[in-house]
Amino acid sequence: MDYKVEVRIELKQGVIDAEGETIQKSLKLLGYPIEKVSSVKVYIIEVKAISKEDAEKKINEACRRLLANPVIQNYSLSVKNA
Amino acid sequence: MDYKVEVRIELKQGVIDAEGETIQKSLKLLGYPIEKVSSVKVYIIEVKAISKEDAEKKINEACRRLLANPVIQNYSLSVKNA
Repeated sequence: MDYKVEVRIELKQGVIDAEGETIQKSLKLLGYPIEKVSSVKVYIIEVKAISKEDAEKKINEACRRLLANPVIQNYSLSVKNA
Repeated sequence: MDYKVEVRIELKQGVIDAEGETIQKSLKLLGYPIEKVSSVKVYIIEVKAISKEDAEKKINEACRRLLANPVIQNYSLSVKNA
């Protein structure tokens, strides 16, 4: 069965978010009262798995091996039926 | 008052998602049964506004002016109290 897994990858606290800071400055220059911008990367992954738990296990492993950098990023998963 | 607005920027249907395709191929090569990967960009924006509606209006305008490219991207907002 196919499952849709949403992976959300955020920078850890204390890591400089260059993209977010640039956007914050640009929006301020345009006149918007923006205090802070944080950038987050989301991947929606369609995976074949025998159960919700299996889908979560597979994508969790994929995150550790390829998608997230544990030195600077945290990730979280949520599994939905496709 | 400060509001947190989550902006979610996705590619329109039909637009090639090079990042997603690359990840899908890489995960397949690693042995994961991945059918499709879509990449989404999320910005969490802290904005000063007098009401929830005001915050939404400001960020909606900012998306149109700076954050999203209407030719290839769709965006959606959700406002929370900070």
